[in-house]
Order: sequence, then structure tokens, then C-alpha cells
Amino acid sequence: MSWDAPIRKEMDLVEEEIRRAVSSKQGLLTDICMHVIGAGGKRIRPGLTLLSYKAVGGKEASNIIGIAAAFELIHSATLIHDDINDHGELRRGKIAAYKKFGVHKALIAGDFLFVRSFRLGGQWNQQVVETISEACTATAESEIMQNSYENDPDTPLDAYLGIIAGKTAMPMLAASRVGAFMGGGSPEQIEAMGHFGLAIGMAFQIVDDMLDIIGDERSLGKPHGIDFLDGKPTLPLMEAMKDPEVGPILSAMFVKPRKSLAEVEEALKLVRSTKALEESMKVARKFADQAIEHLEVLNGSAYTKSMAELVESVLDRKA
Amino acid sequence: MSWDAPIRKEMDLVEEEIRRAVSSKQGLLTDICMHVIGAGGKRIRPGLTLLSYKAVGGKEASNIIGIAAAFELIHSATLIHDDINDHGELRRGKIAAYKKFGVHKALIAGDFLFVRSFRLGGQWNQQVVETISEACTATAESEIMQNSYENDPDTPLDAYLGIIAGKTAMPMLAASRVGAFMGGGSPEQIEAMGHFGLAIGMAFQIVDDMLDIIGDERSLGKPHGIDFLDGKPTLPLMEAMKDPEVGPILSAMFVKPRKSLAEVEEALKLVRSTKALEESMKVARKFADQAIEHLEVLNGSAYTKSMAELVESVLDRKA
Repeated sequence: MSWDAPIRKEMDLVEEEIRRAVSSKQGLLTDICMHVIGAGGKRIRPGLTLLSYKAVGGKEASNIIGIAAAFELIHSATLIHDDINDHGELRRGKIAAYKKFGVHKALIAGDFLFVRSFRLGGQWNQQVVETISEACTATAESEIMQNSYENDPDTPLDAYLGIIAGKTAMPMLAASRVGAFMGGGSPEQIEAMGHFGLAIGMAFQIVDDMLDIIGDERSLGKPHGIDFLDGKPTLPLMEAMKDPEVGPILSAMFVKPRKSLAEVEEALKLVRSTKALEESMKVARKFADQAIEHLEVLNGSAYTKSMAELVESVLDRKA
Repeated sequence: MSWDAPIRKEMDLVEEEIRRAVSSKQGLLTDICMHVIGAGGKRIRPGLTLLSYKAVGGKEASNIIGIAAAFELIHSATLIHDDINDHGELRRGKIAAYKKFGVHKALIAGDFLFVRSFRLGGQWNQQVVETISEACTATAESEIMQNSYENDPDTPLDAYLGIIAGKTAMPMLAASRVGAFMGGGSPEQIEAMGHFGLAIGMAFQIVDDMLDIIGDERSLGKPHGIDFLDGKPTLPLMEAMKDPEVGPILSAMFVKPRKSLAEVEEALKLVRSTKALEESMKVARKFADQAIEHLEVLNGSAYTKSMAELVESVLDRKA
């Protein structure tokens, strides 16, 4: 059974809200947004908001649909702007928005999505606004931090963890925390749901970084090896570069500003020959276990069960 | 006397709030924001918010400083992203942020500014959020609309007015309207202040478009002739292209996708030889008069006097 089974109805309402939010009298703007949003995506962020809301006993779903949608809009805005920055050519199996519509229009569409999410998220109280804006601030800051470690084979683990916290785990923290807050959870429950989101986000990003090494373009919807190509230090790459045998070779390849696709494939093969993926999965598993522990302060329900299933599906995913 | 004399103290508080809002543990992010924000700018948007607030009798300035700052942050975010899109090399006499820090970091800094303004603007009630987000939506939509009229010498006047409303006048409408709302103005006063902002914004942008033709780089802080170079239809260019004598020549030059700087200078000279600037000033004056009329529903005060002075300074400005 899919993790979102008990919130299927609300997830449909979120889809409707997203479509309403991106509708514009400038149809091109809607087209650009839907090019990305309509291409799929797992909708984990709105799912976290809805599950946390329900898990703490939230009843009036109409209160939470807009905020859940806002988290997906923010995520989509980030994807569009990230692709401009990373020169990503494919996204969710489709040509990147900036490639199809041009940098100018893609940049505006990302801004438009931020604005529309502001409208949906800003209608509630200060705690909601603070939590969302802290997460978005962390995302922007982590982009700058990531940049400063580009091509650095000696990136400290803490720096890596800080980067993925900012870009992936903080938004998931916010999505879960706001859901619990809006659902009327106790301070302890709100805190725990925030921790849950943070931990599942860390696991999610580590698995994402592993998939860039072991995944294939068809299932990923984008080429693999991008992190190595771009000199982005990720946990599996950092682990592999510490390998006594292939580490020095890999590091030397990693720091090269321009790499051929053949070199990237060669490097990925070397990474796979080490224990790096196994070690990375251990770290992801640790975060996953933390996430599940945070569910304990809630009364068990179909929703907490779904959250635990979501954690496992994040670890098992192939794309 | 300067138009902001009666709100000098509050304007200083806005500056402090802006500096607080852009402070980040990633110092580079703060540097990029301050590169643009610290380079000057007339702070018209926060000025409008403060004057409208005071003009309707708002007392507790601490309520309004954050929102006033938010309007300047949104404006700065737009400037940073616009320069990426328009390949502008100079802004407020300084090298454009994306030129100095790279497209990637400038794009992130713009997003960061949007987020920080969201934090400041989202703490209030739904009307405030709706007004701000409508203005930002209009800005994004007008960018797309502007794009669709690029290199079109037959751009209808309505399209031009729609574009400048979205990019300049709607944000000024929002700044004024929110000020009056927060200051406890009557529905009639809030409406009138919104109209005031819209009208002064229209006048402002028309004068801006004239300055691109008659201004010089030293006082503008950026090269002139950019609109013609980029094929952006503006009121003075559109008027000049209707001139029976030089119009056809200008139109033929306008539609060329690549123009030399000598051609741009030649075109500006032709524009200046027509009645286009005079006609444009008449339209700007009409909007200025409308703005001043909207002040009538308020009791006259130092603040309404300042607003009228601001209108005149917008028409008189040389940069």
C-alpha cells in the first residue's frame, strides 16, 4: 500500500489548490510552472504536512490544504532556480524549464511560485510564517555554503550535513512542524514532528546522493553522475575519496574543473568499488531510525503508520 | 525640503530593519544584498508606506517599520533578478550584482530577499498578505507580458500601461494601501491611498522611461538607451515611432535584434527631435495630477504635503 493512502482525498485537494495557485492571466507563466509541477514528483512535503496534521488529531482539512500546497510550490520554485544554476538539462524526465522556456522566463516563473506560496502560507499566524521563512532562509544559505565547498575533496562531514539540512531537511522539518502546529498538537508533538521531518529529510537527501551514483537516467528522470561532474561533495563521494586505494585517484579526478562523461563514468565505477555506498546507507538508516523514534510521542494511528512507511519508502526508493 | 522630512526618524528605523533582515550567517549573502541595497535608491516604496500610515492617523510606528522594509526588500530582489535577465551591467552606479558575484549567487540572493520580505510582510493579517502578493504577482506577470512585446514597434498603449502598472505601479499601490490599512484608515482612505500609489507609480515609470532617453550615465548610475537597445517599447519610444517623419526610420532600427551603440545614440537623437518626450511628460503629468487628487479625501497634514512633494519630485527627477 502506498504511504499516502490515508490522506489520498486531501492530497487530491492539494493538487487542485496547486493548480489554482499557478493559474495566471499570463498563460505562459502557468505553463512553465506546470511543466515542472505536472511532471510528477512525490509530493512528500505536502504529504508530511497532511500526515502531521492528522496524526496530532487535526480535523478541519480545509485549514491545511493551502499550506500543504505552499510547500510544494516552494519546492518547485527551488527546482526551477536550481536547474538554472546547475545547468541541469533534465528534470523528472522532462527537459528543464529554463532549457525549454529560456532563463529569463524560468527565473520569473520561480519568483512567481515563491509569491504564490507566500500568499498561501502568509495567511496564518506568525509561527507558521516564521517556520516557513526560516526553512527558506536555510535553503538559500545552504546553496551559498554548497558553492563554497565545490571541488573540495576534503569537505568536512559537518559541512555536508549542514548543506543537506538546509536544502532538503529544513523544508521537510517546516512542512511537518507546521502541519502539527495547525492540527493543534501539543508543544511536545509539534517539536517531535519537526524532528521527524528533519530526520526523514536527511535520510532522503543521502539516498538522493547515492542515487546519483547508482541510479540510471531512465528511472531518475535526469542523468546520473551530476554531483561528481559538478564537483559537489556528497556523502558517498566523500566516503569513497577516503578509501585508501581508490580515494587519491578519485580526489584527483574530482577537483578537475572540466570532466568528460567517460571520466565521470569511470569515477562512478570506482566509487561503487568501495564501501562508500554501504557506509552512506548506514548513515541514512540512522536518520531513518531517528525519524521513526520521533513518532513515539504520538498515539499510533493510520497516520503514524503511514509516516513510518514513508520513511521506509524513502530508503528503498530507486528514483 | 526633502519629501521624507516628516518621516526621517521612521525611515532610519526602516534602514535598520533592512540591515537586520539581510544579515545571514552566510556573510556572502548579506554582502550581495547590501551591494544593491547599500548603493542608494530613493526608498520611495517604504516612504509611501510610512506616509500613508501617518496620513490616515497611524500612531504606533513600530507596527509599520517591518512592512515598509519588506517593500524595499521585494524591490531589491526584483532589481537583482531583472539585471540577470536584462544583462544590465550597472545599477545605481555600481556593477550589477550578477556581474560581480555571478549569476548563481545573485539568483540565490534575490530569492533570499523574497523570503526575508515574506517574513516581515507575512506576520500581519490576510489583507496585507493579499495586497503584497497581488502586487508581486502583477510584477511577475508584467515581466512575461513585456517580453511578449519585445521588438514590437506597434505595441498598443494599453499593453504598455499594463506592463508599467505591473512592474512599478502595483508595488507602489500595495505599499501605500498597506500603509493606510495598517494606520487604521477608513475603507475610503485605504482605497484612495491605493489609487495614489498606483498613479504615482505610473508617473514614476513614464519618467523613468524618459530618462533612459534624456539622462546620462553619470546621473542615472547606468547606461542610457537600454530600452531601445533591448527592443523594449516605452511610451516615449512608441510616441516617436508614430512620428510621420522619423517614425518609420526609428521603427526599422527598433526591430533589429542587434544594435550597435552608435545606432542607439542615433536613435535617441531622433527620438529627441520629435514631440515624443513632451507628449510623454503630458501623460506623466496626468497621472501625477490624479495622484494629487486622491490626497483630497485625507485631512491635510505634513504627511499629505510630503506626498504631494513626492509626486512633484518624481516628475522633476533627473535620475
